Order: sequence, then structure tokens, then C-alpha cells
Amino acid sequence: MIATVTLNAALDVTYTVDHLRPYTTHRVRAMTTRAGGKGLNVARVLAALGDATTVTGLAGGTTGEAIRADLRRAGLRSELARVAGESRRTVAVVDGVDATIFNEDGPPVLREEWERFCTFFAELAREADVVVCSGSLPPGVPPAAYAVLVGIARGYGAHTVVDSEGAALRDALAAHPRVVKPNLAELTATTGITDPVLGAHALRAEGAEAVVVTLGADGLVAVTAHGAWRAAPPARVTGNPTGAGDACVAALARGLARDTPWPERLRDAVALSAAAVRAPMAGEFDDETYRRMRPAILVEELECR
Amino acid sequence: MIATVTLNAALDVTYTVDHLRPYTTHRVRAMTTRAGGKGLNVARVLAALGDATTVTGLAGGTTGEAIRADLRRAGLRSELARVAGESRRTVAVVDGVDATIFNEDGPPVLREEWERFCTFFAELAREADVVVCSGSLPPGVPPAAYAVLVGIARGYGAHTVVDSEGAALRDALAAHPRVVKPNLAELTATTGITDPVLGAHALRAEGAEAVVVTLGADGLVAVTAHGAWRAAPPARVTGNPTGAGDACVAALARGLARDTPWPERLRDAVALSAAAVRAPMAGEFDDETYRRMRPAILVEELECR
Repeated sequence: MIATVTLNAALDVTYTVDHLRPYTTHRVRAMTTRAGGKGLNVARVLAALGDATTVTGLAGGTTGEAIRADLRRAGLRSELARVAGESRRTVAVVDGVDATIFNEDGPPVLREEWERFCTFFAELAREADVVVCSGSLPPGVPPAAYAVLVGIARGYGAHTVVDSEGAALRDALAAHPRVVKPNLAELTATTGITDPVLGAHALRAEGAEAVVVTLGADGLVAVTAHGAWRAAPPARVTGNPTGAGDACVAALARGLARDTPWPERLRDAVALSAAAVRAPMAGEFDDETYRRMRPAILVEELECR
Repeated sequence: MIATVTLNAALDVTYTVDHLRPYTTHRVRAMTTRAGGKGLNVARVLAALGDATTVTGLAGGTTGEAIRADLRRAGLRSELARVAGESRRTVAVVDGVDATIFNEDGPPVLREEWERFCTFFAELAREADVVVCSGSLPPGVPPAAYAVLVGIARGYGAHTVVDSEGAALRDALAAHPRVVKPNLAELTATTGITDPVLGAHALRAEGAEAVVVTLGADGLVAVTAHGAWRAAPPARVTGNPTGAGDACVAALARGLARDTPWPERLRDAVALSAAAVRAPMAGEFDDETYRRMRPAILVEELECR
């Protein structure tokens, strides 16, 4: 089983309006709501691929209940711990041109709530083959949260993937996660290094066993104990990039669970990311693109281990 | 007791952002939520003036529960009937310049829910001296809804005020409400007439006993069976006009409950509206402005009864 952790789960609300005009009143023509957060998207992709998955993390208030209800509708096993605060919403206002996004802050998490979650998480980690920690931390959760969770998971023999940035990512390195997956902007924000291979080496030096840096439409670079690779799609894929990184993380988690060789794992990661770009919603992917792309992904070994 | 009916109650959410830029992502710096809807604002004003008030109408889902919780916090007696649908939210995005507003549609109301509300309302109307029907109708509620509620209220001897527009207002006239209060834009949208006095006469001809047309900063015009008046503040008041109409309705409802002479009632309505413009939130008013303004309001009788 692959457990995905989303400490700052959200209810993603989309408002369709005729045309966004600042400082006027808009009638919302259509509205959708959906449980969101990076770890939830990873779990959706894994479940669609047939992997046994459990969603965990924190959710509170009526928004937290709406998140749980949406996960039930999606058929995902969800074990989100309750917090007293109200989970955040994101509002995307979509018109014929593009989306304008408003992100609420997460709920303040009490120290006791965080400690209770750690105990609860340990029970879940015991059953997990892989634990994925994704996204930002809500206020009140310590920056070392992912270090703590990776430490617990490793104690039970689970593999770990961390997809975060800044202090949450840097602190996690001390616990030696198996894989960390920043995108290039996150890598630069975290290390100050703009070159993906050099930045990946820096994160490995601080404790990550393997570093996969995603490069948007250009694919990814991976630096591991077994070699370094660049993997890219054969042609540029256009579409909705939201959720492509989460699809990549899903592929890396499956690869860890199955212990597939790195080149195959990276091929899978790039193909699944490209297939996510071809799907309208984060957490979804276009199955036909995935199957067609996978054998065509270019994987090149780099001389920099 | 004055009962205010809000069939399309809302949770009004305000997001403060640094600067609204279409097609970018914004962090919400501060967020407030508050039960909204015209009838709720009328009740807040009445309660602040010390009048016994009951809020009724329809509310559903977790948003409906949030509306009820906010009314409890405000100390308002609330008897909102439950519907299966989810009550609407409004989102106001505020930056240093102005507000940009997104209004969700109300929940679809089932025929049985509407019929059950009418029965419930009759129990409440029995206790009420005045019933105020304010605002738009959610989908599924018949356009003649206010006609039905006014008819029920009159059957129990309660006075009635209707603040609406279009079909909801026109249909209500058949039940002979004591007072209807459109603003000039609503009057024109409903009657096709742009002159407030002529438009008011038209609504009286269709069944309203008295018509009060609000004119923004210019005060109001009233056409009644006892005479016609224009009332205006002595000087232009600047501030937040949202909720000024609801404060006017609150004054008209108090005047009906106390049977005060029309000139005094209109003086009170204009002063309370001006005091609402001086307050930051709909449903609030600046008490000092109200007390200072009231004796200074100019009321002029019109030769057009």
C-alpha cells in the first residue's frame, strides 16, 4: 500500500464566469468543488493505475468534511485526522481566457493535534510500502514535520518520497528520504542553485538518497546512488500543467514499491506527467497518452554521478 | 416582533489580497465570513435598535449551518428552515482599490421544501407584528412566493414590507403589501418607468398600499394613501452604500410596527440609511450619524397624491 500525506488538504472550488472584470460583480455560471492538495492528486493517479492507496493528513471543520465526502465519492481510502481549525479552500475563477486563483491559508494546527497525528501516522506507516509527503505545511506544524514523518516511516521499513520546497524540504533531508522531487524553481528556492544537476547533488549531500528535478515540458533530471539520468518526452506536450508534478511523484512511488530500475522508473514518470498535462484536472491523466508515450521517452545517462 | 424573510440567505466571504491581477495566483492575506442576505441585514439593524426580531427563510448544507452559527454569534433569533441543497456563498475579493464580487446561485429548492416552509412561516407570522420579505428567490421557489407569504401574514394581521424587484416584486403586489421598497433601478427594471413618482404610482395601481423608492445619496420618494413625500439628507454622505437599502427597510418596518406618521417614518428611514453608509459592513450603522442626522432630514410633501 502507498500512503500519501497531505497536511494542508484543500477544497478546490472552480467558479466559471463570463468574463473577469476587476471591481465589478459577477454571477457564477457554474461551480465545481473537489478535494485538492498535492498528496490527494498523487493518490488519485495511483488509484487509477490500480495501486492500493491510502490518503492521510489533516482536515478540519465543514470544509474538512467536504474534502472527506469528495474522497469517498472518488472511491479513495481516506484516513485524514481531524483538526479543530477549518481546512482551507482555493477558489479558481475561470473565464474564456484563463484561471485567476485565490489560495486561503491553511488552518492553524495545535501542537497536540500534530502530536496526535504523528501517533496515528505511525499506525498507518506500519502497513505502508511507500509513504509520499507532498505540499506545504499549515501554520502550527513544525518545519521539520516531514523529517519526523520520514523518520517514522523508515522505522517501519517504508520507502519515502518528499515533494516540497524551502524549509519543509531542507529539514526533511536529515531523515534521509529515498527520493525528493522538487521542480527547478523549488530546487533553486531551496538551494540557491539554478543548475538542476548541481542542485540535485547539493540535496543528496544533505541527506536525500535520490533527487528527481522536474523541468516542465523538458522532462526531468535524476541524480541517484546508482547513476544520473536525463529523461524527456520525444515531443513537447501542451495542455494543463497543474498536477503533472503529482503524476511524476505517483510514478516514482510505484517505482519504489516495485523496485524497478531507475531508467524504467524515469520513463514511467515522464510519460505519466505528459499524460497528466493532457487531462483537464489535476489528479487525472490521459491513459492513451500514457501508454503511447511510455516506450518513446528518451532516457540518457549523465556522466556526473 | 418583526420577522424578516431571507429565502436566498448566503455566507458572505471576504478575501483581502495585495492586488488583484487577473490570471495570476493570489495568497489570501485575510478572510472574513458573515451570514448575508438582505433580510439578515434588516434584522441586524432592527436588533441593534432594540426591536424584537426573528430571522426566517431557507438555508441548507454546511454553508447553511455556517449561516446559522454566525447568526447565533450575533445574538439574532434565527428560524431558518432546512433545505437539502447547499446555500450559496458570495466571495468579495478586496484589494487596496475596490471589491470584485462573485455571487453563486442559490440552492435548488424542492416543491415540498417550499410548501413545508409556508406552513412553518404561518406559525411564525402568527406572532409577528410586521413581516419583511427581502431579496431574490432561489431556483425552485415560485415567482409568486412573496405574494403567498404576504397573503399568509395579512391573514394573521401582520403588516408587510417587500424589498425585491422584477417578477418577485410584481407578483407580490397582488397580495397588497403595506409597503414595497424598490430602489430606482429596481423600479425601472420592474415597471419600465424611470420617474420615481410615476413608477411608484404604477406599483400602487397594481396593489401596493405604499411605495418608497430609494434614490441613493438623494434620499427617497414615498407615495402612500395619506400623501406623497420626498425626503433627503441635508448634505451628501459618502461611504459604503451596501446595506443602506436594508437600513431603510428596517426603519419602514419599525414605523409600521409603531404606526408613526409618514413624515417621521421617512425621516427615520433616510437618517438610518445615511448612518448605514457611514458603517463598514452591511447590516451595521453609525449610531452617532443616525442621531445627528435624524432631526436634520428634509421632508417635503409632494402635490401628487
